[in-house]
Amino acid sequence: MARKRNGESLGQDLGEPAAGNGLLHRRAFLQGGIAFTGGAAALAVGSQPGLAASAQANPIGNGSPPWMTTPGKLFSPYGMPAEAESGVVRTFALNKLAPGVGSSRTPHHRLDGTITPNGLHFERYHNGVPDIDPAKHELVIHGLVDRPLVFSLDKLLRYPMESHIRFIECAGNSASAAGAAPPQANVQSIHGLLSCSEWTGVPLSVLLDEAGVQKGASWILAEGADAAGMGRSIPLDKAMDDTILALYQNGEALRPEQGYPMRLVVPGFQGNINVKWLRRIKVTDGPTQTRDEIAHYTELMKDGKARQFWLEYGPKSFIARPSFGVNLTGPGYYEISGLAWSGTGRVAKVEVSADGGKSWAEAALNEPVLSKALTRFRLPWQWDGQPAVLMSRATDERGIVQPTHDEWSATFAPGQIYMYNGIQNWAINDKGEVANV
Amino acid sequence: MARKRNGESLGQDLGEPAAGNGLLHRRAFLQGGIAFTGGAAALAVGSQPGLAASAQANPIGNGSPPWMTTPGKLFSPYGMPAEAESGVVRTFALNKLAPGVGSSRTPHHRLDGTITPNGLHFERYHNGVPDIDPAKHELVIHGLVDRPLVFSLDKLLRYPMESHIRFIECAGNSASAAGAAPPQANVQSIHGLLSCSEWTGVPLSVLLDEAGVQKGASWILAEGADAAGMGRSIPLDKAMDDTILALYQNGEALRPEQGYPMRLVVPGFQGNINVKWLRRIKVTDGPTQTRDEIAHYTELMKDGKARQFWLEYGPKSFIARPSFGVNLTGPGYYEISGLAWSGTGRVAKVEVSADGGKSWAEAALNEPVLSKALTRFRLPWQWDGQPAVLMSRATDERGIVQPTHDEWSATFAPGQIYMYNGIQNWAINDKGEVANV
Repeated sequence: MARKRNGESLGQDLGEPAAGNGLLHRRAFLQGGIAFTGGAAALAVGSQPGLAASAQANPIGNGSPPWMTTPGKLFSPYGMPAEAESGVVRTFALNKLAPGVGSSRTPHHRLDGTITPNGLHFERYHNGVPDIDPAKHELVIHGLVDRPLVFSLDKLLRYPMESHIRFIECAGNSASAAGAAPPQANVQSIHGLLSCSEWTGVPLSVLLDEAGVQKGASWILAEGADAAGMGRSIPLDKAMDDTILALYQNGEALRPEQGYPMRLVVPGFQGNINVKWLRRIKVTDGPTQTRDEIAHYTELMKDGKARQFWLEYGPKSFIARPSFGVNLTGPGYYEISGLAWSGTGRVAKVEVSADGGKSWAEAALNEPVLSKALTRFRLPWQWDGQPAVLMSRATDERGIVQPTHDEWSATFAPGQIYMYNGIQNWAINDKGEVANV
Repeated sequence: MARKRNGESLGQDLGEPAAGNGLLHRRAFLQGGIAFTGGAAALAVGSQPGLAASAQANPIGNGSPPWMTTPGKLFSPYGMPAEAESGVVRTFALNKLAPGVGSSRTPHHRLDGTITPNGLHFERYHNGVPDIDPAKHELVIHGLVDRPLVFSLDKLLRYPMESHIRFIECAGNSASAAGAAPPQANVQSIHGLLSCSEWTGVPLSVLLDEAGVQKGASWILAEGADAAGMGRSIPLDKAMDDTILALYQNGEALRPEQGYPMRLVVPGFQGNINVKWLRRIKVTDGPTQTRDEIAHYTELMKDGKARQFWLEYGPKSFIARPSFGVNLTGPGYYEISGLAWSGTGRVAKVEVSADGGKSWAEAALNEPVLSKALTRFRLPWQWDGQPAVLMSRATDERGIVQPTHDEWSATFAPGQIYMYNGIQNWAINDKGEVANV
């Protein structure tokens, strides 16, 4: 009973390699062109016909496992992950001098799909998580407006809302990969300042329209109610476009570390622009030049000039499985799985190489591919047990291609780390161990 | 600075009612046709120009709230909701004789968007949550196959995967609404056996293809490793179509109560068919007639015959805000917000009535509208303070329309409760209190 979707015949032999070093066609499985078994000897795993082991004659004859002979655990008001998954957590290193300054990272090497569960969304604070009483929190809109306004959370719940799946990425994500020596560290350590959620809230344009933006206005200042008073300037065009005042994350109220009770979600823009614990929007005729955008978040170029207010992410991707610490367990079939995204819109294409960039095969993108959201890509791979170098390269819908590390380095002064989006290379040795190269 | 997307002019006055009792056009806000302020007196809230209050002359002159003057809380490995949201939890009533039998419910009246966070996904067990050691758990495929196979979790991680956002609904969801008297209970109590997640796993067809399904096979038996040995029969066509063996829910490994380490996700089919803690699939030439599908989950019709293996949900919807217990706080503008879904595919349309079904307006559907997933619908409403009856009616992409309670009752024998999908009516009195009618 071969699986042929829509009864179509195969126009090509999908079992043939799509690129060097064992990369197979992205539709190989979905269109039934290959199978673990069947005649395709290249797909055999060791001496077995497939990855699965053959079952004994009576496959359930060995009696019941212990968890089938005892009544199970009871209901809980709010569920938590299995104890066996207790290692799948955010990682962080406390700063002894200023413990509320820093970040924690999402374990993408242990996750799959595109949504980040709320408990594992990366954190970044400039002075810890404020303990806000939602009944006393207010959002003020003032500055170049006809009517300065104050919004309570209760009132905002009556406003029109939208839901969108969007990634948020810290400006410092992948910073360690921007340097000259590739860090021998896992995906969580290198790329973990990145997460993706379904955000629900009020379009900021609705609130700005109600306040009445005046002529001459061109930027807004957004300020948080944390003890850092974190403030960033945002171009008014972006604030009026797809920016929302988010109240819900993945269905439920925002988590405290994600800005409870309200934050901005500014799709595709630098993480700190998505101001958390939002208390104030001031409509202005230019950027405010806050401490947070002068002392940080500018990028020095090769020519000695600095980029300020460079806010929109370019296309980026990494392979999560296999990756550093997620090794191969023997030759044979694997699915290469990773994440791609772009601040500019949808991901148009992700290519994967298994031979260090000599040849590339196009990965399958998990549908629906959404704008400014994480996109899962996958590609079948037959590993022959020999050394290989895996790479992924994202192209966005404008045709912009993710740069190599060298291309990125040619643009910026040494030591620059923000907004790094170079290609991630993983070298696999003949034992299946993965190194960053 | 009026908000007109793409500079288009408005072809109609979107501030005009779309249906009786104050329902406005679904695009009213997005196309800038109305605003809280401006000339539209119908949109005024009480004597104020909008829902927001006017800010004082110096809107941030009252000093900083206490949470801005103290460093905040520090990082956590796995985050939890805010303490102020501690009432947003699953509800359940323990069965004293058999405490592992029952269900807990998702608080949809306190959520928004379409994703259910993992901690709030509804639960349903027949003998509690088994405490499974994932390293010892195995999945067997046997029966009418060429090669009986055994799969470990480790090996499954090498197989091709897909991610899909799908709803799961218990057969008994909304059961209390199927009776003659509408229950005076909230959305969580009535419709809370329903949740929606991004599920990631291996297409079941890949595993069945590897085992080699034999001629004459037409069903499978799926059996869980819980202490109830819960088993259900599934038509082979469905098993080979869009059914997946799920390993991840909203990005992370399945929660124990959702089938850790593996479960079936059978899109659009009755909840218990999505067998959790899956240990065995037997390919068969007919339904197995397990205890679980003989003693339960059959539906008696008016003519004395019973429907068995009636598995696919029809179109359904409810309004979550306002709803029982989620009252209005005074006349003026509100957004009506709710959920719609269908086991048959995408939701094509949701209509809302504010006058008990005399007139209907089409709600906005949050994009992307995905097949067999919860769809959020929203519609602006100007409540005049007079009694009103709110209803929502979903139509799926096949053109099937959600029935009224009376239409549903005309088909089934009295006392039948499974798969109920009748229209939910909420009556609002002149105090803004909501009752079920």
